[in-house]
Amino acid sequence: MTTFLHKYKTARHFIYELLHTPEIESKLERYVRLLIMFLIIASIISVILETVEEIEASFSAFLYFFEVVTVIIFSIEYILRVWSIVDDPLYSQPVIGRIKYIFSFMALVDFFAVFPFYLPSIISVDLRFLRGLRLFRLFRIFKMGRYSASLNMISRVVSSKKHDIAVTLVVLSIVLIIASSLMYFIEHDAQPNAFPSIPATLWWGIATLTTVGYGDVYPITAAGKICASLIAILGIGLFALPSGILVTGFIDEMHSQKSKQTCPHCGKEIE
Amino acid sequence: MTTFLHKYKTARHFIYELLHTPEIESKLERYVRLLIMFLIIASIISVILETVEEIEASFSAFLYFFEVVTVIIFSIEYILRVWSIVDDPLYSQPVIGRIKYIFSFMALVDFFAVFPFYLPSIISVDLRFLRGLRLFRLFRIFKMGRYSASLNMISRVVSSKKHDIAVTLVVLSIVLIIASSLMYFIEHDAQPNAFPSIPATLWWGIATLTTVGYGDVYPITAAGKICASLIAILGIGLFALPSGILVTGFIDEMHSQKSKQTCPHCGKEIE
Amino acid sequence: MTTFLHKYKTARHFIYELLHTPEIESKLERYVRLLIMFLIIASIISVILETVEEIEASFSAFLYFFEVVTVIIFSIEYILRVWSIVDDPLYSQPVIGRIKYIFSFMALVDFFAVFPFYLPSIISVDLRFLRGLRLFRLFRIFKMGRYSASLNMISRVVSSKKHDIAVTLVVLSIVLIIASSLMYFIEHDAQPNAFPSIPATLWWGIATLTTVGYGDVYPITAAGKICASLIAILGIGLFALPSGILVTGFIDEMHSQKSKQTCPHCGKEIE
Amino acid sequence: MTTFLHKYKTARHFIYELLHTPEIESKLERYVRLLIMFLIIASIISVILETVEEIEASFSAFLYFFEVVTVIIFSIEYILRVWSIVDDPLYSQPVIGRIKYIFSFMALVDFFAVFPFYLPSIISVDLRFLRGLRLFRLFRIFKMGRYSASLNMISRVVSSKKHDIAVTLVVLSIVLIIASSLMYFIEHDAQPNAFPSIPATLWWGIATLTTVGYGDVYPITAAGKICASLIAILGIGLFALPSGILVTGFIDEMHSQKSKQTCPHCGKEIE
Repeated sequence: MTTFLHKYKTARHFIYELLHTPEIESKLERYVRLLIMFLIIASIISVILETVEEIEASFSAFLYFFEVVTVIIFSIEYILRVWSIVDDPLYSQPVIGRIKYIFSFMALVDFFAVFPFYLPSIISVDLRFLRGLRLFRLFRIFKMGRYSASLNMISRVVSSKKHDIAVTLVVLSIVLIIASSLMYFIEHDAQPNAFPSIPATLWWGIATLTTVGYGDVYPITAAGKICASLIAILGIGLFALPSGILVTGFIDEMHSQKSKQTCPHCGKEIE
Repeated sequence: MTTFLHKYKTARHFIYELLHTPEIESKLERYVRLLIMFLIIASIISVILETVEEIEASFSAFLYFFEVVTVIIFSIEYILRVWSIVDDPLYSQPVIGRIKYIFSFMALVDFFAVFPFYLPSIISVDLRFLRGLRLFRLFRIFKMGRYSASLNMISRVVSSKKHDIAVTLVVLSIVLIIASSLMYFIEHDAQPNAFPSIPATLWWGIATLTTVGYGDVYPITAAGKICASLIAILGIGLFALPSGILVTGFIDEMHSQKSKQTCPHCGKEIE
Repeated sequence: MTTFLHKYKTARHFIYELLHTPEIESKLERYVRLLIMFLIIASIISVILETVEEIEASFSAFLYFFEVVTVIIFSIEYILRVWSIVDDPLYSQPVIGRIKYIFSFMALVDFFAVFPFYLPSIISVDLRFLRGLRLFRLFRIFKMGRYSASLNMISRVVSSKKHDIAVTLVVLSIVLIIASSLMYFIEHDAQPNAFPSIPATLWWGIATLTTVGYGDVYPITAAGKICASLIAILGIGLFALPSGILVTGFIDEMHSQKSKQTCPHCGKEIE
Repeated sequence: MTTFLHKYKTARHFIYELLHTPEIESKLERYVRLLIMFLIIASIISVILETVEEIEASFSAFLYFFEVVTVIIFSIEYILRVWSIVDDPLYSQPVIGRIKYIFSFMALVDFFAVFPFYLPSIISVDLRFLRGLRLFRLFRIFKMGRYSASLNMISRVVSSKKHDIAVTLVVLSIVLIIASSLMYFIEHDAQPNAFPSIPATLWWGIATLTTVGYGDVYPITAAGKICASLIAILGIGLFALPSGILVTGFIDEMHSQKSKQTCPHCGKEIE
């Protein structure tokens, strides 16, 4: 017990290490995190299953009980998080630091994930859909070791290429609008119900360019089929371009991580 | 005001900077460009919405009013562009430079985007479809800072690989024609309506190779399904090849931007 | 014959070389391996064909005969494998080595691929589905020369990127659940049969994100179509991300095979 | 005329240069090649159009006339090719060289593309389908300058990765058979018509793994939908793997082309 206190100076610091830091240093820490992660996933599944009529009819009592349990645990976790955050150098001032933390994105998500439960049921507005915010809590999964590094790396790559991706999306939109307008003029007379207007034809255009092809709308005239074929082939390019762009980003990232390499024999930096 | 005139020597030069250069140097410039971009997008949306019967029925007066406003603004913009272009060193001669500019691609697009509006309605030919040219005006969006660089880079990459892409397309066409001819011979007797001729079967072939798969035509015989399976698997390669080709192009581009490489023997710059 | 014995010291060593080593050194070895590979493929095809009613009705006697033959050959092969494994330095102890081998994954697969056949037919549990395990025996195909190197390389690359792939899958799941929940709220009232609950909508979400698009479920309201369009476009990114991640893995692998790099300062080898 | 003869020593050498070499050195050469290419494409289109009943009914006389003209030109071209081939150092012996050439792949294609036409119509076997071989003549398009280099490069890359691609295809097959067998056991009872046997379920498996998704067969049970979802997500990997493999091939190719670089200042080789 002494060693324990020795390691984590105070109880608050212990809670801080338990809930906030990305590193997992003890078995207890691992179990607490896995439990919270499990409860988040279970509560999301329960919200999803509630929409299935048969399940809602048979298990509503159990689902409500589970909801109460998770909300209580999440509430305690939220309070402990706010209390212990001052051990983080970024939020070190007892009052201002905590207020700053409360209005951070992840803390707001934590708050609105439990808040609707406490509202008196008299309030006519149904805020239960806010429970959907629990989904964002899943991002906590990335606060663990290697996954955290992976997510950072991927988002750094995507964000470094955001201008190229935006240009691709604009070119895609232009191609889409041109193709759909053309298709509307070609197919409107043959299938006035399937292609009633340009906005409706855009739906066909997206399904074709992205190669989803539900099959609810498709051309039947020869000219329409030729036009659709060209769009579908362009769709291939639409997949190749973002691949090419992201690959360059990943390679850039790979080089910038390597280039700070040092020789293990003499300790000097290479390249 | 003096500083203002000081900076842009003449009013014409001020208009030139406002409408023609890719760099955005003042707040006014930013607002004017965003306004024009907003009007282009809004006028495209209005042309698209006009094809929806219910909207045309209820809002035709508003749509017409909006059309008049945008056409007037676009016309003024067009006149100012032609007037101020002589500040560009490429078009510096007052008469010849302006004529040269008028017949450039983007200026023709600007012209035909407003021109049909001024034709007396007596003219029987409906040239309103020329308004579709406004879509091309969207490319102006790329005349702004970083996006301009991105578009240039992407089109440089695609164009550097145009021979490889052409070869891929020819190989694709050959595979497509062979597969469709084979499929016609296999399925024609079982489904004379779905596979009536080779050209009609090409439609099936494209939908399968590009993995769109609308589901309006598909084989029902065992031989036909085996043949279709092979085509669908080849379709995977069809996506992998252009990816590979474009990736090489992007990497080439990346290297040529980074490495003003120097020769290790004499220390001079290469390429 | 003397040279023969000279080369493979003992008969057991000869069997070991024949069945266990990846290198193919003699014509006999090649033929034995091709025969076993052929029998594995043929027995899988026969298990598959048994499920076709017409074939089962007409050829059941032949299929049973073929089953008996392959099971006998596979049993002999299994016994010889267990007997000869002690020539492998990893399993050199006669008893413990063989037991260790018997409980290795591939040996268990070999065992359960023939075992159900020997069970007296009185046993009510039908264990014939275990024959499906023969599929895993196909991996033996990779125990031959170059293919072995290819499979190793590919699995090394995939496994080196497993954290990045896991993160992509989690992000995909979050996008999927958010999209499906949204879609459920949008389309539930318009199509209560197609979108009866969130779990049922997840099926639509997967078909759209992966661009399969069977066409059994699709949105019909305008809001639903806009939402589906965004998901379909996100689906493109879903294909580009794993491509980018795997490409980096392949490039890494390529470099690490090529460059036993040396430090330019001290001349010693790195990594 | 003297210069002309001077350049091409003999008439045979002139024909050789005209028909066989990849380089296009004169305007005449360009026109002859473009004419032949045009005739090949036109004759393929006419063979395809013949299968359309309405066209066959109205234009059969014209199509037959066109067929006669192209067959005559192709026959003359074939004879000239065989005659002039001896100017190629590889086929220099007058008799043996020509026989060797006649049995080369491209010459056989040329032969069977015209041969059926000369058969007396009494022969009951309809060999007209051999005209489909004309498709392969399209590969001649690649015998021109830059396209030739592109095709060579692409086929070198694909062939350098053939072991990796084969392994991917085998892994794909194993995944496909496992998924289809599982799906058969899950869905057979619910949809005995859609999933009657494992071979029939393989058709569903391919349509899902390749993301074609015609929509003729899809699971309706919850377990079937979960299984199909996993397959569809694996399908993404199926696209990412070949992309990754081919990209490495293209990069390898790029490096091996560059690595013979010399410094333009001192003339020494770099890297």
